[in-house]
Amino acid sequence: MSELEKFKLQLRQFAEERDWEQFHSPKNLSMALSVEVAEVVEHFQWLTEEQSKNLPNDKLEEVETELADTLIYLIRLADKLGIDLLAAAQSKIEVNERKYPVGKAKGNAKKYTELDK
Amino acid sequence: MSELEKFKLQLRQFAEERDWEQFHSPKNLSMALSVEVAEVVEHFQWLTEEQSKNLPNDKLEEVETELADTLIYLIRLADKLGIDLLAAAQSKIEVNERKYPVGKAKGNAKKYTELDK
Amino acid sequence: MSELEKFKLQLRQFAEERDWEQFHSPKNLSMALSVEVAEVVEHFQWLTEEQSKNLPNDKLEEVETELADTLIYLIRLADKLGIDLLAAAQSKIEVNERKYPVGKAKGNAKKYTELDK
Amino acid sequence: MSELEKFKLQLRQFAEERDWEQFHSPKNLSMALSVEVAEVVEHFQWLTEEQSKNLPNDKLEEVETELADTLIYLIRLADKLGIDLLAAAQSKIEVNERKYPVGKAKGNAKKYTELDK
Repeated sequence: MSELEKFKLQLRQFAEERDWEQFHSPKNLSMALSVEVAEVVEHFQWLTEEQSKNLPNDKLEEVETELADTLIYLIRLADKLGIDLLAAAQSKIEVNERKYPVGKAKGNAKKYTELDK
Repeated sequence: MSELEKFKLQLRQFAEERDWEQFHSPKNLSMALSVEVAEVVEHFQWLTEEQSKNLPNDKLEEVETELADTLIYLIRLADKLGIDLLAAAQSKIEVNERKYPVGKAKGNAKKYTELDK
Repeated sequence: MSELEKFKLQLRQFAEERDWEQFHSPKNLSMALSVEVAEVVEHFQWLTEEQSKNLPNDKLEEVETELADTLIYLIRLADKLGIDLLAAAQSKIEVNERKYPVGKAKGNAKKYTELDK
Repeated sequence: MSELEKFKLQLRQFAEERDWEQFHSPKNLSMALSVEVAEVVEHFQWLTEEQSKNLPNDKLEEVETELADTLIYLIRLADKLGIDLLAAAQSKIEVNERKYPVGKAKGNAKKYTELDK
């Protein structure tokens, strides 16, 4: 079992032990996920791109916590829907590799913006 | 090396080969992450909680793709910031386990809403 | 001049007097807008739809403040882009009225989900 | 009656005529609002701040449509909660004027990031 799978089970148990499964509908979890991501965005909103690459340590730790929360809700949501998250991401990248062959896509921002379509 | 670590390196190589690292500032990646999550939310916005638990197969596949994109940008963002995503999430859960002991937190929505604070 | 126009000018002056225009690129304002909206969503994430219709007064006041912040950034963003916000919304509704004639759209959730496409 | 008030009533009638009020719980509308804002963000995610200030006309029109949708859902949400949106924003700015006196706040990004707290 992969580490991510183990962590998924740990999160499931965490919610079950606290009777929190009742709040964890996919609808609600998608909202919680979006709220956590916004807390990531909040740290970057007034920074230049350069500044965002060089966060001071205290800021970096705060962002780390928000990314952790984001992963937690993402794993929970996938679990409730019976989706294998890592497998889904891996096959998405295989699709993208065919869709954006290295030669054509190189440094192309326009193509890029279509990456996740 | 964990599967998640391997996938992180694969994503890094994918971006490098296409010269896309130039677009991948943490600021930009946080925006892309929020856009992907909104595409998840979009599927659930007019559904009841019950309906969100019983997606038809075609919808479920679409959500799977959006969750895949979300994980991809989340891993990329953590990578650019030098953050170990899974380790961060694991230590966050340890904090939460102390903060919300099973007895006190059971079925408590109010406590719950403070879970990720 | 409409009240909304007057308020737009007041917000512009507010930013100019504080030398904050330098931070108000459309890119940054779109991020700030999304962060404010997430603070609205945060209030509703664990509530049922019914509960969301019956907020206690203290909650309602908090949501009011977040909606105020959302409108402020929305007006600022439109102003920086030279967009007449209300006129744009009014002509969007005219489009929707033709697109969703009353007879066909009545109570139709499926059509509905395509409202803003 | 202000133009915004009139438009609010027009949106209310639009929803009522189509029996769409049943989908317009505050919870659902907050989700729809966040989805629309993400469609704004999507246009800016890979642009530099400078590029975001100089959108080509076709892009600008697309952003205009997304801002229109955002205003529409924002007005609907405030209406369902009985909130006077413009009045709320106006009194928020009065608070901010006292909180960030011109002399102290001038060009201060740090203070700035606390603007909407």
